[in-house]
Amino acid sequence: MPTQRLPLRDRLELKVKVTVMKKLFMVGTGPGNLDYLVPLAQRAILESSDIVGYGLYIDLLGDLVKNKTCHTSNLGQETERVKLALDLASEGRVTALVSSGDIGIYAMASLAYELLDRHPKAEWFDVSIETIPGVSAMQAAASKIGAPLGHDFCTISMSDLLTPWESIEKRLHAAGQGDFVVAIYNPVSKTRNWQINHAREILLEYRPSDTPVVIAKNLTRENETVNVVSLLDVAAKDLDMLTTLIIGSSDTRTLSVQNTQRIYTPRGYSKVLK
Amino acid sequence: MPTQRLPLRDRLELKVKVTVMKKLFMVGTGPGNLDYLVPLAQRAILESSDIVGYGLYIDLLGDLVKNKTCHTSNLGQETERVKLALDLASEGRVTALVSSGDIGIYAMASLAYELLDRHPKAEWFDVSIETIPGVSAMQAAASKIGAPLGHDFCTISMSDLLTPWESIEKRLHAAGQGDFVVAIYNPVSKTRNWQINHAREILLEYRPSDTPVVIAKNLTRENETVNVVSLLDVAAKDLDMLTTLIIGSSDTRTLSVQNTQRIYTPRGYSKVLK
Repeated sequence: MPTQRLPLRDRLELKVKVTVMKKLFMVGTGPGNLDYLVPLAQRAILESSDIVGYGLYIDLLGDLVKNKTCHTSNLGQETERVKLALDLASEGRVTALVSSGDIGIYAMASLAYELLDRHPKAEWFDVSIETIPGVSAMQAAASKIGAPLGHDFCTISMSDLLTPWESIEKRLHAAGQGDFVVAIYNPVSKTRNWQINHAREILLEYRPSDTPVVIAKNLTRENETVNVVSLLDVAAKDLDMLTTLIIGSSDTRTLSVQNTQRIYTPRGYSKVLK
Repeated sequence: MPTQRLPLRDRLELKVKVTVMKKLFMVGTGPGNLDYLVPLAQRAILESSDIVGYGLYIDLLGDLVKNKTCHTSNLGQETERVKLALDLASEGRVTALVSSGDIGIYAMASLAYELLDRHPKAEWFDVSIETIPGVSAMQAAASKIGAPLGHDFCTISMSDLLTPWESIEKRLHAAGQGDFVVAIYNPVSKTRNWQINHAREILLEYRPSDTPVVIAKNLTRENETVNVVSLLDVAAKDLDMLTTLIIGSSDTRTLSVQNTQRIYTPRGYSKVLK
């Protein structure tokens, strides 16, 4: 029997179908400066006709989003933003949903899958999703001050909007018991400020009051500041929504290099060095 | 009084001094594929005359290191590698110490500061160190399979070469108690294989046997594999040195999108969605 071939019209249709494959990029844009945007993320943005994200993050993309349809929204409208991105992509528009840092860490990628899982629209399942990771705030902060994430660490968000405070508290105690370095995301917001002070008190049950803490703001952007304080001196009043903290473990140490304070968490090589 | 000016010779010397500023870049090269190398890292490598690193990682840099003096060494020679990089930089050679993933996470940056702190040579303190973060293996793994790092997580290395097993065990218990997603680095090595099986047993005390676990190998490189298994089925015999694991928390869920299994850890938006 001869191999069956599709009639020409069907073959052309097949080709057309491949060409209009529906595509959503979920892109982590890094801490802000485009020097930290991975090439794959840059290409995804350039290939997209529509960009969806929080206004500040889209602004930081500068010329990369020139001549693109930008759908900006405010902080707190995460669900609307992700639904819009899935809707646009399912209409056949190549769309990039952007988020600062790593879109897979406390950001929109998880919400997209949560929507697909719990509140899906049938047409969203026609969309091919490609996620592109980025440098997260804690990594940029660490790189600027030394190597505080050099050994086992955990990340905890202080936002109790969607996570009960009891769960956050349980994780802070676990972080203390396990002697993890602790990266803190979302330490305060406009309507929320007592949690970080409470976290400080919990961790002080497990580690010394002079444990070094990195406080980083506006990383890789104008007005970047990266300071080291003692755990005892961490206070909500000194922090804002663009702040990331890294709280040392009992092993974390400070030293001075060229009159600049550095902080690092050793793997323990010095034990085996002569 | 007229403004005092330096004599011409002194001004020239000043200029020469600035030009030969001693520089060490510590560069995280990401998971492997150059599509994940941040532009700042690319520039640092291009600006360097000498590249120091593990052979495989330098090979992955391809044309970027053409015509540069590459100092390759084997795994396990970390201390020699970092000392060499500091020595070369202090001799005035612009040097890049490279490490796959993020050089600040279980990699060479922490060791460099450990040497400066505990076993310093005076001339190393003349070197200006610039650290450039990269996409770590867990982030690449997460992006390929969904969003398992979408909520609080911790990272634990299974290497007990420098960390006593009791400390690792304590952290595994803490991770279980705190219900963190757990990223596992260095699950096995050529000479070390029982730790990950032990870790599985500890975490099974705290979470169900069908907890989803991501097993990722050769991320972003040829022969990349990213699979999901149940916690009960994690076994050292299936892993190698280039494997990263992400073990879900009790909240982590799986779903199927376009016949592909996806895994994500929700922030909890579905609680407030209609």
